[in-house]
Amino acid sequence: MTMLLAMTGWDYGPWIERFSSATAGLDIVTPDDAFDPASIRYIAAWNAPDGLFATLPNVEVIFSLGAGVDHLLKRGDLPDLPVVRVVNDDLTMRMTEWVVLHVLMHHRQQFAYDAAQRAGRWEPLWQPAASAVRVGIMGLGVLGQDAAEKLISLGFDAAGWSRSRKDIDGIACFQGQHELKPFLARTDILVVLLPSTPDTAGIIDSMLLAGLARDSVLPERFPVLVNAGRGALQVEADILAALDDGTLKGASLDVFETEPLPESSKLWSHPLVALTPHVAADSDPQAIANGIAEEIARHERGEPLLHAIDRLKGY
Amino acid sequence: MTMLLAMTGWDYGPWIERFSSATAGLDIVTPDDAFDPASIRYIAAWNAPDGLFATLPNVEVIFSLGAGVDHLLKRGDLPDLPVVRVVNDDLTMRMTEWVVLHVLMHHRQQFAYDAAQRAGRWEPLWQPAASAVRVGIMGLGVLGQDAAEKLISLGFDAAGWSRSRKDIDGIACFQGQHELKPFLARTDILVVLLPSTPDTAGIIDSMLLAGLARDSVLPERFPVLVNAGRGALQVEADILAALDDGTLKGASLDVFETEPLPESSKLWSHPLVALTPHVAADSDPQAIANGIAEEIARHERGEPLLHAIDRLKGY
Repeated sequence: MTMLLAMTGWDYGPWIERFSSATAGLDIVTPDDAFDPASIRYIAAWNAPDGLFATLPNVEVIFSLGAGVDHLLKRGDLPDLPVVRVVNDDLTMRMTEWVVLHVLMHHRQQFAYDAAQRAGRWEPLWQPAASAVRVGIMGLGVLGQDAAEKLISLGFDAAGWSRSRKDIDGIACFQGQHELKPFLARTDILVVLLPSTPDTAGIIDSMLLAGLARDSVLPERFPVLVNAGRGALQVEADILAALDDGTLKGASLDVFETEPLPESSKLWSHPLVALTPHVAADSDPQAIANGIAEEIARHERGEPLLHAIDRLKGY
Repeated sequence: MTMLLAMTGWDYGPWIERFSSATAGLDIVTPDDAFDPASIRYIAAWNAPDGLFATLPNVEVIFSLGAGVDHLLKRGDLPDLPVVRVVNDDLTMRMTEWVVLHVLMHHRQQFAYDAAQRAGRWEPLWQPAASAVRVGIMGLGVLGQDAAEKLISLGFDAAGWSRSRKDIDGIACFQGQHELKPFLARTDILVVLLPSTPDTAGIIDSMLLAGLARDSVLPERFPVLVNAGRGALQVEADILAALDDGTLKGASLDVFETEPLPESSKLWSHPLVALTPHVAADSDPQAIANGIAEEIARHERGEPLLHAIDRLKGY
């Protein structure tokens, strides 16, 4: 059996090595190799070249090499086959680290302490307990649930919002468009871990930000936005306007409408913004290759794929 | 029964209110009030005026209003009575928040990302998993154990060091002077939560810092120091020298030899230092008053005090 690795922007060499060490009996080819199109049974893709999929008649499963599958679903040549996304503990733990770090930075007023330090000012600030701070997590998949669990263990008052009904211990779960307003109204720190789909495009806009809590325990610091989902979820002009007019008191962003973030963006130098270059859940590539190899082994044994997406939902 | 509130540097008014709402049947007096010295059965103190304790013949228990008891033990007039320190969930959770925040800031290379952001550079960095980063916690009391538990749940490889043997699930426990060297040699992020005693004075010095791990997964970022214990534990000149010669790659400090930290200190502006003004575990004062009221109620019922210190150990 043969798997086609199809990527743009990444080097093939290291990925071929990772798959070679992860799989037994799998031939790996790339678009640069000479191969029989009919021999390809699996594709592992990251922004694969346009039109490539249409040339392969016998593919059974398409794997994303990253957490998101938007790069696959937006293609015109995507066949009606199972699409599998990356879900592994390594990726989940890294994302949770990033989310916990940025929630704590806002909660513990680290921007203000950093500014005081640089100005040489010894300036203790009144600090609420975590139990008085309401974190709201949009997206309650594997990533959102793990982040919620860790934030709850640190004492935060956590709630979640998702498209479909979830029941998670210790967390108030809001559902669907009609419960978005009450969810936002009780959120001091908004953590966004939604997938990028046509439904979620631009969801973080002026209207959403205006709906965040106005009755925070610390109105000079909250509400804040923490987006580690996808850049397509956010309207950056609206975020900047909300920061400037006081609707938002801070933002941590790992993802952007255009990546790398253009030099001209005002986000770079905004004093209330912490940004990282799409690294929140930069997973161990070997763990990704191992996960795909495991899914292929399951499929070959006739077992169901573990992390095939729902094409209708888009995640 | 009467309790004397004895403090310097803090306002009496709010503390009188807190104790009034926390206790039933306790008369609260301050050194400014006219009172019969023989009526005082309890003292709640924070840097109480010198010589005051010697004037009170019938005291039964002395309470510290802060987590440390060094302000009591260093007094010349401390009678041979039970000394009780503040232990409460609120204080523990706040300390854990601060420790987790600063460990994650170093782990996730936040100093470097912040510098890249301010320079307008999109610069993803290679990031190890938490499981490849070894956190060492000095001090395994209530605070050290809680921090260890939360760091382990985030995936860190955690070990602890304490004066007396501890057995804690999931954490390698080192003990005493003879096990300090192997403990330090496997530590990338050193978290100090020791009490301030004559034994621990200046323990964070050149020799200790030179003993930290030299075989880190990310040698350009580790080892780092995170001190939330007491300023008396650290030799700041040694920390600065270690930062400047590369022995240390970063430091987070909440406590200092002299507080407030003098304007002249080079720590303020050091690019590898994050400092906060002794706020890591600024506990809710009402929770402290409630805890003391509970200890008094136990004592009145003839039950043992929950958090009396060991005078020989000093904590």
